Amino acid sequence: MNTIVADHPNISIHLISAELDSVFERRIAATKQLGPQLERLWSLAAQRTQGGKYVRPLLLLRTIDTLTDMGPATQAPPPVATQVSLAAAIELLHYSFLLHDDVIDGDTQRRGLPNLIGELIAQHETTNEGATAQQAQHFARSCAILMGDLLLAEVHQIIARAELSTERRARALDLLAAAIDESVAGELLDVGMSDRVIAPDLATILEMSRLKTATYSFELPLRLAAALSDAPAATERALAQCGRHLGLAFQLHDDMLSIFGDSAQHGKDPFSDLREGKETALISYARMTSAWARIEPLFGSPTLSNDDALEVRRILAECGAHRFVSGLIDDELAAFDDMLAASTNDLPARARESLRQHAAALAVRTS
Amino acid sequence: MNTIVADHPNISIHLISAELDSVFERRIAATKQLGPQLERLWSLAAQRTQGGKYVRPLLLLRTIDTLTDMGPATQAPPPVATQVSLAAAIELLHYSFLLHDDVIDGDTQRRGLPNLIGELIAQHETTNEGATAQQAQHFARSCAILMGDLLLAEVHQIIARAELSTERRARALDLLAAAIDESVAGELLDVGMSDRVIAPDLATILEMSRLKTATYSFELPLRLAAALSDAPAATERALAQCGRHLGLAFQLHDDMLSIFGDSAQHGKDPFSDLREGKETALISYARMTSAWARIEPLFGSPTLSNDDALEVRRILAECGAHRFVSGLIDDELAAFDDMLAASTNDLPARARESLRQHAAALAVRTS
Repeated sequence: MNTIVADHPNISIHLISAELDSVFERRIAATKQLGPQLERLWSLAAQRTQGGKYVRPLLLLRTIDTLTDMGPATQAPPPVATQVSLAAAIELLHYSFLLHDDVIDGDTQRRGLPNLIGELIAQHETTNEGATAQQAQHFARSCAILMGDLLLAEVHQIIARAELSTERRARALDLLAAAIDESVAGELLDVGMSDRVIAPDLATILEMSRLKTATYSFELPLRLAAALSDAPAATERALAQCGRHLGLAFQLHDDMLSIFGDSAQHGKDPFSDLREGKETALISYARMTSAWARIEPLFGSPTLSNDDALEVRRILAECGAHRFVSGLIDDELAAFDDMLAASTNDLPARARESLRQHAAALAVRTS
Repeated sequence: MNTIVADHPNISIHLISAELDSVFERRIAATKQLGPQLERLWSLAAQRTQGGKYVRPLLLLRTIDTLTDMGPATQAPPPVATQVSLAAAIELLHYSFLLHDDVIDGDTQRRGLPNLIGELIAQHETTNEGATAQQAQHFARSCAILMGDLLLAEVHQIIARAELSTERRARALDLLAAAIDESVAGELLDVGMSDRVIAPDLATILEMSRLKTATYSFELPLRLAAALSDAPAATERALAQCGRHLGLAFQLHDDMLSIFGDSAQHGKDPFSDLREGKETALISYARMTSAWARIEPLFGSPTLSNDDALEVRRILAECGAHRFVSGLIDDELAAFDDMLAASTNDLPARARESLRQHAAALAVRTS
C-alpha cells in the first residue's frame, strides 16, 4: 500500500467496495446454475454490504501502510490487490456474524432499515400468497442462516487462496480462527445472559463485550496487518493490546449510544436494547443499586412504551449507571493511551498517530 | 493408503475416529481460556460424532486406494495421515450441515436420540432454574447455530492447512466450495417448499434431493479422491456421475424408509416426515392422483395419530406412489450401472468394484 492510497481513505473505500462487488459477482455467477433462489439471496446480500463505512478493512489497510516505517522488514508487505482482498474478507466476516446474530436475536432491522431477514419478509408480503406470515418469517430466518454460512465459507476461501507465503498464510489462518472462536464465545455469553442461562454479572458482561466485538473488529485487522508486514512479535502484541482497549471502549460506547444517543443519528430502533432485555454494563450497574426495583418491571418488555423507556433512561442516569460506564470507557481509552506511550520502540510514530486518530473518531461518534 | 488399510474398513474407521478425537481435543484446548460454556459445547459436539458409520470419509479413503491402480500417476497420493485428516474434515462438514438443518427444521432428535439441541434442552431441564423452557430452547438452538459455524470454519482450516501441493489444495478448496454451494441450494429448496414459498413439483423435489445430499455425501468424497490422486479429468467426471446417481438413489431410498421402513431399525421418529409435511417424491406423486384428497387433510399435521399415519402409508402404496419412487430408485441405480460399464477406460477395475459394493450396501440398507 503506498502512502497516496492510505492518505486518501476515499480511494481505499473505493478499492474495498470494488473488491466486494467482484467477490459477489463471482459468487453470483458460480451459483447461477443452482436456481434463482440462491442467486437472488446472493444479490440481496450484495446490496446490503454496499455503502458501509468499512471501518475494519480500512483499519487493516491503514495499519499495514503505517508499519512500512518499521525499517527494513524481512519482506515487503503483499501487493495492494492482496491487501484489499483480505480487507474485503474481514468485511464479509463481519457481515456473516451480523446475519447469525440477527437470527439469534430475532431482529428484522439494523440501523433503522430492514436487514436481510426483514427484506425477505417484506418481499414475501408483496409477492407470495401461498405462505403464511409465520412461514415467510421462518423462510427468511433460514435464508439468513444459510447466507451466513456461505459468507463464512467465502472468508476462508479468500484467505486460504491469498497469494501469501506459507508462513504468512498460516498466521492469517490462525488469526481468523482466533477471531471466530472469541466472537462465538462472546455471542454465547450474550445469548446465554439474555436467556437467563448465564448470570449477568459485570465481569461477564465486560468479557462478552470484549470477545464479541473487540476481537474481530479491532484485534483481527491490527494483528493481521502485523502478520502481513512480518512485524516483530512485540509489535503484534502492542497492536493487540491497543485493539482490546479500543474495542471494549467502542462496545461500551455503543451500549451508551443505544440508550442515551439520538436514534435519528445512530439509526437503531430507539430503546430496542431495553425492550430486548439486553444485558449491558449499564444494566449490570443499575442492578446493584436500589434504583433497580423501578427498572426491573419495565426491562425486557417487548411492548415498552416510549414514555416508560425515557423513564428508564432517566433512572439509569440518576442511579449513576451512566457515570459509571462513562468512567469505564475513559479507563479503557486511558489504558490505550498508556499502551501507545509505552510502545515507542514497538510501533512506528505514524502507526501510533493513526491509532490515536482511530480512537478519536470512535470517541466522538454519534452513530 | 495401502491395500491393507483399505481392505480392512475397521482400521480406517479407527483412524478416522482417532483423527476426529484429536481435532476435538485441539479445539477444546484452544478454547479453554474462553470460558466453560464454549468448552462444554465442544465436548458435547465431540461426543455426538462418536460411533458414526463414517460412510463419507470411508468412501474418500477407499476411492483413493482404488485409484492407485490407475497406473503411473504424475505423483503419489498424499500420505495416509493427510488423507485421514481430509476424511475427518468431510465428516465434520456433514455434522455442521446437520446442526444447521436441525435448527432450521426445529428438530430435537436424530436417529431416535436427542441431537445437540435436544441434549442441551434436557441438561437445562435438570440443572437450570432461572431460564424458562422457551429460553432454554432458544439458547440450545443458538448453540447449534454457533457450533455449526465453528465446525464449518474448522473444515476450511483443515483443508487450507493440509500438506498438499498448491494445485491439489486449490482443487480441494474448489470441491469444498461447490459442495457447500450445492448443499445450501438444496436446503434452500427444501425449506422453501416446506414454507410454501417454492412450489413442490416433482422436478424441484428431485433437484433438492440431489443438491442436498448427493453432492457432499457422494460427489465430494469421490471427486476429492480423484483430485488427490491427480486422476485425469475423465476419471473425475465418471466418479462425479456415479456419485450423482448413487446420491439421488440414496436420498429417495431414505424418504421411502422413513415412511415404509421399520422405525425400530432406521431410528427416526416414525412418520415424522408426514407430521412435518416434508415434500418428497412420494408426496409429489400422490398429489397428482385422485388419492391426494384423502391424504391432504392429514399431511403436515403435527398431531397426526399413528393410525392416521398408517392410513396415509396405505394410500401412498395404493395410489402408486411407492411403486413410482421405487422405479425412480431403480432408474438411478441402472444409470449408475451403465455409467460404470461405460467407464472401463476411466476407472480401474478395483474402483468400479468398490463403487458397486457401495451401491449394493445402500440398496439393502434398512436404516
